[in-house]
Amino acid sequence: MDKDEFRRGVPTVHKIWGISTAIIAGDLLFSKSFEALLYLKELSVDSRRIVEAARILAQAASTIAEGQAMDMAFEERTDVTEEEYFQMIYKKTATLFEASTKIGALVGGGSAEDVELIGNYGRNLGIAFQIQDDILGVIGEEEKLGKPVGSDIREGKKTIIVIHALRKALPKDKEKLLEALGNRSLSREKISDVISLLISTGSIDYAKEIALKYANIAKSIIEGIKVKDHEAKEMLIELANYVVKRLK
Amino acid sequence: MDKDEFRRGVPTVHKIWGISTAIIAGDLLFSKSFEALLYLKELSVDSRRIVEAARILAQAASTIAEGQAMDMAFEERTDVTEEEYFQMIYKKTATLFEASTKIGALVGGGSAEDVELIGNYGRNLGIAFQIQDDILGVIGEEEKLGKPVGSDIREGKKTIIVIHALRKALPKDKEKLLEALGNRSLSREKISDVISLLISTGSIDYAKEIALKYANIAKSIIEGIKVKDHEAKEMLIELANYVVKRLK
Repeated sequence: MDKDEFRRGVPTVHKIWGISTAIIAGDLLFSKSFEALLYLKELSVDSRRIVEAARILAQAASTIAEGQAMDMAFEERTDVTEEEYFQMIYKKTATLFEASTKIGALVGGGSAEDVELIGNYGRNLGIAFQIQDDILGVIGEEEKLGKPVGSDIREGKKTIIVIHALRKALPKDKEKLLEALGNRSLSREKISDVISLLISTGSIDYAKEIALKYANIAKSIIEGIKVKDHEAKEMLIELANYVVKRLK
Repeated sequence: MDKDEFRRGVPTVHKIWGISTAIIAGDLLFSKSFEALLYLKELSVDSRRIVEAARILAQAASTIAEGQAMDMAFEERTDVTEEEYFQMIYKKTATLFEASTKIGALVGGGSAEDVELIGNYGRNLGIAFQIQDDILGVIGEEEKLGKPVGSDIREGKKTIIVIHALRKALPKDKEKLLEALGNRSLSREKISDVISLLISTGSIDYAKEIALKYANIAKSIIEGIKVKDHEAKEMLIELANYVVKRLK
């Protein structure tokens, strides 16, 4: 199982063992994350910090479900705005980055201000990550992604790339794009045409620019935090650099 | 939505909105249960009790996923023992009753002994409930159940009724039963034959007897607990009576 397959663990389970097992595997991973957090009591972490951390995780889990539902609802629409897109990826993706970083700071004994700051880093990194994911969904290599090129187009996903292209394309091209979006049996050739269109409208570059902006905000936030553990800080900076690098 | 449909909430969502939405709805309900629990901090419940309660819930959730996986794995087998069946329904069903009752006692300020005792009540009630559910799956009315009569047979579920019948049936009848189990396109007529067989082997009565035994254990445990709040105690006794009554 390579890295991307691991990240998409449950869909992989789905392909091998069927939908029911995939659902159960998802539930299991879900409860295991709470179990791990609540086990911290045995490691003498203060109970109030654990309750707060678990509350952040539970709220994040609810928000993620909401974001995922929005993402699916957007597939049926053609008038999704950039603002709605940002709300959706905040909920679907960046929430988990935010919660994870906050929980780390909280459990590590950080102050309320530290927790907020590092959560802010996580949120911005998460948004950069999701936009990057959307870009790779169009121009990435199939083997690395673990899903077929163009699957976002076949599913009618309203990524920032598509939203930008629908705004910038000439009427004839816009029509072509709308026809392709959500067509589950779209040919490889037609997908290539759509990708060319998304490049020519400047929509990929537009998305890259925004992702870079968010990754750089994340980097500057973490650089500004005063810490004792410089190794941990370096790792978080590297994480932001990694997103930036993949975009170049 | 009637009571049984409510209990089977996620499968109902599945039929109306599709599998993806059903999965998300399940995840949402899952995280909402943790959110509700962690909200108790605002109601001045002691943090250590909340951590312990959330730990019980998280472990129960993992155990339920395990039990559900066992239940599915048993569909493919014909040699499931009664012991394995009891392990499976403890994990799949009784765990949640146990966790719910324990959490109630814990949050309500109960002693460690109270929590154990009431959890014991929940566990026994849950086992009685699941066996009752398996009985109703064979002889229940379709409208009340919200799922077709005989669906457990079509799915090849290894309920205690089926395990008993496989042990007691004459070789010819056993063969007939094995042919029917897991046959998803089994006719209504064949299902009637199987039900008659399960009655004639005494397997329904056998299951009823065991369910009653567990419900009565639950009742005697709760009756033995000394409480200040008699109304709450009465409700828990009534809950056990309800299971017993439905079995008569």
